[in-house]
Amino acid sequence: MKLHGTMTINEQGHLSIGGCDAVELAREFGTPLYVMDEEHLRAICREYYQSFVTKYPRNEVIYASKAFLTKAMARIIAQEKLGLDVVSGGELYTALEAGFPAEHIYFHGNNKSPEELSLALDSKIGRIIVDNLYELELLEGLCREKGVKAKILLRLQPGIEAHTHEYIQTGQIDSKFGMAIATGQAMEIVQRALAFDHVELKGLHCHIGSQIFEIASFKHAAEVMMDFLKRVQEETCRELSELNLGGGIGIYYAEDDTPAPIQEFAETIMNTVTEKANALQLKVPKIIIEPGRSIVGTVGTTLYTVGSIKNIPGIRTYVAVDGGMADNPRPALYQAKYEAALANKMQEAPTEVVSITGKCCESGDMLIWDIELPPVESGDILAVSCTGAYNYSMSSNYNRLPRPAVVLVRDGNADLIVARETYADLVRNDLVPARLK
Amino acid sequence: MKLHGTMTINEQGHLSIGGCDAVELAREFGTPLYVMDEEHLRAICREYYQSFVTKYPRNEVIYASKAFLTKAMARIIAQEKLGLDVVSGGELYTALEAGFPAEHIYFHGNNKSPEELSLALDSKIGRIIVDNLYELELLEGLCREKGVKAKILLRLQPGIEAHTHEYIQTGQIDSKFGMAIATGQAMEIVQRALAFDHVELKGLHCHIGSQIFEIASFKHAAEVMMDFLKRVQEETCRELSELNLGGGIGIYYAEDDTPAPIQEFAETIMNTVTEKANALQLKVPKIIIEPGRSIVGTVGTTLYTVGSIKNIPGIRTYVAVDGGMADNPRPALYQAKYEAALANKMQEAPTEVVSITGKCCESGDMLIWDIELPPVESGDILAVSCTGAYNYSMSSNYNRLPRPAVVLVRDGNADLIVARETYADLVRNDLVPARLK
Repeated sequence: MKLHGTMTINEQGHLSIGGCDAVELAREFGTPLYVMDEEHLRAICREYYQSFVTKYPRNEVIYASKAFLTKAMARIIAQEKLGLDVVSGGELYTALEAGFPAEHIYFHGNNKSPEELSLALDSKIGRIIVDNLYELELLEGLCREKGVKAKILLRLQPGIEAHTHEYIQTGQIDSKFGMAIATGQAMEIVQRALAFDHVELKGLHCHIGSQIFEIASFKHAAEVMMDFLKRVQEETCRELSELNLGGGIGIYYAEDDTPAPIQEFAETIMNTVTEKANALQLKVPKIIIEPGRSIVGTVGTTLYTVGSIKNIPGIRTYVAVDGGMADNPRPALYQAKYEAALANKMQEAPTEVVSITGKCCESGDMLIWDIELPPVESGDILAVSCTGAYNYSMSSNYNRLPRPAVVLVRDGNADLIVARETYADLVRNDLVPARLK
Repeated sequence: MKLHGTMTINEQGHLSIGGCDAVELAREFGTPLYVMDEEHLRAICREYYQSFVTKYPRNEVIYASKAFLTKAMARIIAQEKLGLDVVSGGELYTALEAGFPAEHIYFHGNNKSPEELSLALDSKIGRIIVDNLYELELLEGLCREKGVKAKILLRLQPGIEAHTHEYIQTGQIDSKFGMAIATGQAMEIVQRALAFDHVELKGLHCHIGSQIFEIASFKHAAEVMMDFLKRVQEETCRELSELNLGGGIGIYYAEDDTPAPIQEFAETIMNTVTEKANALQLKVPKIIIEPGRSIVGTVGTTLYTVGSIKNIPGIRTYVAVDGGMADNPRPALYQAKYEAALANKMQEAPTEVVSITGKCCESGDMLIWDIELPPVESGDILAVSCTGAYNYSMSSNYNRLPRPAVVLVRDGNADLIVARETYADLVRNDLVPARLK
């Protein structure tokens, strides 16, 4: 397992994260446990900020909170001077509860409800990214009722098929998201937005997908969007000042993954936009980017306790842990690959190939197929790395497993930022009609 | 959309379930909403009971609660004289909170924790289905400490590959579940269990997978297990009296699905077991079966409100609803197919082919591709049928969407059995360390 962030191996031969012994964390907080490395998180936030904002002060880096959001996370993001991308009333509520500055919140989504849009307007958030004509009209109507004007971006389809899992590939024309440039619908929605009185069109947005390693894809998207900004200027005489290029920067999960340095990504984007602006005689727009996974993915590690171990001679050894697809559905959903290590045996050499299974009653509940580990025993603590994004946020109570706690570690301190669910939490909203009692 | 259970089309041309107008249900309880048809549920329970228990009074039908469990559901299952299959401490807790009779609870799972096994022993549940040698030793130790004797079944692998999605196919040798007959490990665990003092081996268990349409697969499993019971008798001089043949009976989701009648399934199983017992000179064992999906799958319908509609000329029309993969991850996980109808336009003829997408920020959040519907408008109520199993139970707060309410309908009455989550519920367990405030 590659060591990320502040991970080290301590004198006991244990995995240490944020100066905390992972075996001690498991003992103190129980397992499964999500461990978030605060120093690593802040370092990535700062690298994004320095690459995109320090050099280009009008720019904004917006954390895509669907990857991982809690009140504590929102506080850290605010402290690091990043904005926040939310995609639902629930994410917006969480941010507001945490005191996140509303003017730096961007609201995304292909089907925002009237209630969600109202909450966004009432909270005076920074931008609403309008996905389609229906939403544009809905928003115009709500603004008229409320007597307010919403600052919006429009989500467009640049027509780019990035190389990634089809579930998280979003830039192609046949997509639930945005209006396509190629079909003429993008220009149509721009013109409609400009004609409305209660929305102020600030700029455009695109997002080509997730877990993308090829910087050339982002460069291509930036070029397409700049060309379209030029067409908008020519056809409407309006030069839009903001260009949101979304997120999707790939991260390291396992050894075939080759993420580009943030610095290189930023330079490519900004050089492309600047060159295009010069060539097209446009002002360089404010660039907004929305990293989620690439901020928080490698920050998280899940600790599990090994339970049953079953060797099927000549076939496979199944090592079962006390979590699984309920706390990490990504292997089942996307055939995602993860690395892992025995946190209590970091200096022991690998001797066997095993497969890691969860405790859910389902054959699909496999976390890692065919991983080399030192001799595994029941009671060992298995650390699965790079679980910071889309693990807690996608977790369920499948099999009525309580969701794990989340602990934030730094400089040898560990603070609980999400308490472990209890059995009582599972039935909190249950009601039994009188006639069934 | 095929009409299930008490579904009818009422005078307004609306879908009616349990005598309740679905459009009214959506208005009263909001959407997304899980609607459970109580009369239909009880009818299926009774069909199982009559087929398996009335005719063979020693038998037991055990509802596999991982498909859908709330306190109200546990009450109904108890009233219908079925037992309960639980796979975690959380499911066991829910059942006990609902007052479910402990002696009719069976505890499954490939990796039960010591805490879960302790809870099971302290609650004096009916049977623990031991999955592997590790668990057998763990349980023996716990029983010794507590001075109790646990009644157990052993989960075996019959070596049958049923035709179903590989994630939910569990009878093959390379499986996380159970000990294989073919490798000799099944006989080994039987002998070990018989040698222990604090477990009482009552019988054997197998489960060949889920959503299986071929009764021949179940017949084959029954034959293999009966043969193995005979071998156990020959090699250990013990005739085990219970045979649990698991669940996995396929249900109707969409038009290619051809479920067998419960009656036929029961007759095939019982005739096979009886003939085999006669041929092998064994007593007919008590047969236990564990239907989950086939009890509750067609009982549930999800109601959504249509929001944005986006036509991409020549390509596709995306109809977005106010839920999606957070309340029904099965299309993304298993490429599951569903049927749907517009609950407020049941008598209108289909005129267009559209695709139903959810509101999650992910391209994979598609509920139904290419479905024929009458002209769809924003505000329409979309009913997706056969969502009773593995929808609520697998639901998440992805995108921080609150989980839907569940309403139980019968004879024109609608009772809330799970209250809708609130935004406050989403941050209930969040903590912000003092230094982040």
